[in-house]
Amino acid sequence: MLGKLTLIGCGPGASDLLTIRAARRIVEADIVFHDRLVEADVLELASPAATLQYVGKKCTDGGRQQTDINSMLRGALLAGRHVARLKSGDPMIFGRAAEEIAVAVELGAEIEIVPGVTAALAAAAECSIPVTERAELQSFVVTTGRSANKDKEPDWANLLKPGICVAFYMSVAQAWRIQTALMARGVPGSLQAEWVENVGKPDCRRVETRLDRLALDARQHRVRNPAILFIRYPLSATNVEVIPAPADGMTI
Amino acid sequence: MLGKLTLIGCGPGASDLLTIRAARRIVEADIVFHDRLVEADVLELASPAATLQYVGKKCTDGGRQQTDINSMLRGALLAGRHVARLKSGDPMIFGRAAEEIAVAVELGAEIEIVPGVTAALAAAAECSIPVTERAELQSFVVTTGRSANKDKEPDWANLLKPGICVAFYMSVAQAWRIQTALMARGVPGSLQAEWVENVGKPDCRRVETRLDRLALDARQHRVRNPAILFIRYPLSATNVEVIPAPADGMTI
Repeated sequence: MLGKLTLIGCGPGASDLLTIRAARRIVEADIVFHDRLVEADVLELASPAATLQYVGKKCTDGGRQQTDINSMLRGALLAGRHVARLKSGDPMIFGRAAEEIAVAVELGAEIEIVPGVTAALAAAAECSIPVTERAELQSFVVTTGRSANKDKEPDWANLLKPGICVAFYMSVAQAWRIQTALMARGVPGSLQAEWVENVGKPDCRRVETRLDRLALDARQHRVRNPAILFIRYPLSATNVEVIPAPADGMTI
Repeated sequence: MLGKLTLIGCGPGASDLLTIRAARRIVEADIVFHDRLVEADVLELASPAATLQYVGKKCTDGGRQQTDINSMLRGALLAGRHVARLKSGDPMIFGRAAEEIAVAVELGAEIEIVPGVTAALAAAAECSIPVTERAELQSFVVTTGRSANKDKEPDWANLLKPGICVAFYMSVAQAWRIQTALMARGVPGSLQAEWVENVGKPDCRRVETRLDRLALDARQHRVRNPAILFIRYPLSATNVEVIPAPADGMTI
């Protein structure tokens, strides 16, 4: 008998931002795959008979590569276990969900996916940042400062146009490059921006900044990942004076 | 004594996709502002002593304009009521949150915002659609087919580039215009797309389609709002043959 894989979005950290369905599925599982981002009181929902399996990534002690996690998942499903795979935020956003779904699909195991509150929306709620706004912001973009391949980095400058709010995940180290790329394309340096650190945790902190001071304020206020960076570009901000980029190209 | 405003994201419809915090805040409220999109079993969480106030929008019977909702909200806060303002999905995405927050800020009333599972992420989970994917999709965009002002419509063609997944809310009526705008800019018509109707409800339905058949399949399968349209443009899809748009411009 094959097991079942339940990918569960656990929200940004606070256990009361778990959905009711997520809480029920954790209770039902017989093995719980989790990493360091999932809080202790979420793990405490697991049945005492269930195994808690730490599968954090390489950069932390005892962490593993994604290929190792996939092997462990395959093993547990072949052993007939009901695996609750906990993801912080929502499983479909920067959660490597496609790879873990592929493991279960290949075996023919049952899969359920439970959505969660993604960190950007938790941060927006906590700091009162509307990510859409009638007649001002019609699109909301979630992107990342990290990427699998440097050459395939998101084209940040192309994502932020008038009418768009962008949330950057894991982007503290890229602050200078993001700000330079955007300003070189003519985005006004006066645009309002926010760093939100430790979303959903008791030590959540908001640092208000502007596009031309992203890196400066991140350094001065010692902003650390996990942090979300919001930049809002309302349609009405297109009236702001723009200093064109130098013609010889501020390539970065 | 001024009241308190709690903006609450109720998720896409299924009551078990409510967060624990959202459920608690509904229980605590003494007046509950809701519209037709919020399910009956969510409303049943309200205290028997609380008033349920229907504030649906104009297009439905008995519905109101946003300005009327703002006035009612102001009145309730001045009367010292604890208002739970229920929003389907997440309050910060297409929820007119900025306007309702402004009412409370102007009065100096306390505000709390409870994030929720936005419809696109619930649809992605229900239909197993990863909206990001390592080395393929690094950005996720949420946008709308409707806008406050026709001239300020989102520039759809500019949102969908290689490496991006776009979710369009309320876009059935714009299917033909979206597909034409994207293909005129050289986006391959063979790109995989999905309509997801009635997310989070028992009659949730997925219609698989492609960019060049968006409108055709919406009509043939009678897709109705509320529906989310997903279009994924993986980096590897840029190898697909693209038929350039005619030089005389297929303006729409």
